[in-house]
Amino acid sequence: MSDDSTTAPPDDPEQSTAVVPETTRQIVIREVPQGQLEATHFALQEVPVPSLGEGELLVETLAITIGAGQRAGLQGSAGYAGPAEADVVMTGTGVGRVLVSNHDSIEAGAVVMGLTGWTEHAVLNGKRATVVDGAVAPATLLGALGTNGLTAYFGLLDVGQPQSGETVVVSAAGGSVGHIVGQIAKLRGATVVGVAGSDEKCASLIDDLGFDRAVNYKSDDFRAAFKAATPDRIDVYFDNTGGDILGSALFRMNAHGRIVCCGVVSQYDTSTPGPGPRGVPGLLVNNRVRMQGFLVFDYADRFAEARAEISNWLASGELIARTTEFDGLDAAPHAFVDLLAGRTVGTTVVNLAS
Amino acid sequence: MSDDSTTAPPDDPEQSTAVVPETTRQIVIREVPQGQLEATHFALQEVPVPSLGEGELLVETLAITIGAGQRAGLQGSAGYAGPAEADVVMTGTGVGRVLVSNHDSIEAGAVVMGLTGWTEHAVLNGKRATVVDGAVAPATLLGALGTNGLTAYFGLLDVGQPQSGETVVVSAAGGSVGHIVGQIAKLRGATVVGVAGSDEKCASLIDDLGFDRAVNYKSDDFRAAFKAATPDRIDVYFDNTGGDILGSALFRMNAHGRIVCCGVVSQYDTSTPGPGPRGVPGLLVNNRVRMQGFLVFDYADRFAEARAEISNWLASGELIARTTEFDGLDAAPHAFVDLLAGRTVGTTVVNLAS
Repeated sequence: MSDDSTTAPPDDPEQSTAVVPETTRQIVIREVPQGQLEATHFALQEVPVPSLGEGELLVETLAITIGAGQRAGLQGSAGYAGPAEADVVMTGTGVGRVLVSNHDSIEAGAVVMGLTGWTEHAVLNGKRATVVDGAVAPATLLGALGTNGLTAYFGLLDVGQPQSGETVVVSAAGGSVGHIVGQIAKLRGATVVGVAGSDEKCASLIDDLGFDRAVNYKSDDFRAAFKAATPDRIDVYFDNTGGDILGSALFRMNAHGRIVCCGVVSQYDTSTPGPGPRGVPGLLVNNRVRMQGFLVFDYADRFAEARAEISNWLASGELIARTTEFDGLDAAPHAFVDLLAGRTVGTTVVNLAS
Repeated sequence: MSDDSTTAPPDDPEQSTAVVPETTRQIVIREVPQGQLEATHFALQEVPVPSLGEGELLVETLAITIGAGQRAGLQGSAGYAGPAEADVVMTGTGVGRVLVSNHDSIEAGAVVMGLTGWTEHAVLNGKRATVVDGAVAPATLLGALGTNGLTAYFGLLDVGQPQSGETVVVSAAGGSVGHIVGQIAKLRGATVVGVAGSDEKCASLIDDLGFDRAVNYKSDDFRAAFKAATPDRIDVYFDNTGGDILGSALFRMNAHGRIVCCGVVSQYDTSTPGPGPRGVPGLLVNNRVRMQGFLVFDYADRFAEARAEISNWLASGELIARTTEFDGLDAAPHAFVDLLAGRTVGTTVVNLAS
């Protein structure tokens, strides 16, 4: 927890006398991991709160979210965000309350979402911060209405393009993106099969979230169970894992099927990723399969439209947003390790403010 | 050569007194190859000419074409045409003259294209035979105006969608499909880089067919040369090979690039295909790349439109169709081996009739 506090209540955006602390706590990458990530790869430090430049905001972080894809960002030069470096603040999306604003249209007291990183106070460029509804729980803002929900929405609907009656399979189905993908696919009339890492997760996907079937990829007879769970084969495979699950899906695709390449969590927590799946490109040709990678940021001009539809689904109860929450900045490295080990469900959120 | 002859001249479709031989020669798969294909995997046999059923045509084969993809059809159950079997006539597309017709709208004397197989006389279902212009050389009908040209046309334009100014790379660029892909890409205003298996082929791609650059994948410094040949990286990669060349291309794709999966010749002539390319699916995500397999048969309703445009390009000299021709049915197995060894250029054609 931060050892300072703001006196600005959420309903008083005119307040501009917030107490700005002199220092803040943040988590830096102590060492770029070479093998499996451990909490000791990170270190906590206390630093002076930086002064604000033109157009910038000082934000007290309320909550941050951690995604498996961030592990890819620690793999050196392979990630889309560039190489990982030691001694920099760990990056990530968060929700925070504006303490001081040097931006024309964002006032102190507003709640914003942006790349806060793992820090109790962040300086954000106002142009890159999105003002959000402070009455909505940060976990929802960061999950179903944040990058995870938007990734599920655009990846499934725009890239995967499922049709009513088709079979949609999603891997890491209990995860931050996967559990939303499956539910949106159901809303579009698809038969939905989830792949997850435990029998408990599989049961919950069916019982709580309405998936038609679910398969535990850690079971001994995974391939046979996967085949049995896809009697009409697969029209859309939403891939969050790569690796063996992708390999199995490739052999079950229907003609003109679509594979949505969203993440590669099976290959993140290592410095020696495995070979690509056998059957690429041969099976893509034989079955006329389209395999397409995407990044949600490319859909930024349609985020508002997607958030409106997701909000309606949440309000009506048609979409259930799952989160696993941790408390306090110190818990962030452990949360990240738990996430990569498959011990979290839904969106992983670390709450910073009490 | 066939030891019979038809008396029907091409300009007299009313003629119906063609001499029908009692027997014909054909090449069967003697043994499904387990490793590299050899001519001894095939055997020549002489059999009675079958009688015709309703709607069928008896055709004297004028020429057949052989494509690398047919090697995939001999790999067991992996091919889209089903498992390979011994003691059946080798399949394949050919052009032939109709000797006897039981079909309402195709007359004796007409020249047709269809799945004749490797036989001097074939029985074709009239519904599956396409009447073609007997004045055009069979090699052209089977190459630029046949499956190869249509594959290049739809794969590049519909799947790859190159824009003017973009960089298009094609592998097996001296091959039946590749040499046409590169020329159509030039016609669409792209910068075109070919990958081929010898310095001679590379020089010919540039000097004779107008490619901008070409790289010999057998050279020791292939990766460096490939990088140097794609200074603006790659927007469309038309993949005829899979394997290492696909792996190299994956690392050079621009954001939103397209990989057209047409064939996997690097993996055909073996029973132990290698693993998939490293970087699938990770690099597809990071660079938002679309990788799409296709089969030309899915575009059958647009073949006439494509043939019209290709014919115009051939007539104007904007498109140069390359062929490597062999003579006599007996040469077909050797032609196939030469093709797989990279010793042919353009469309491989075996002429049967003198």
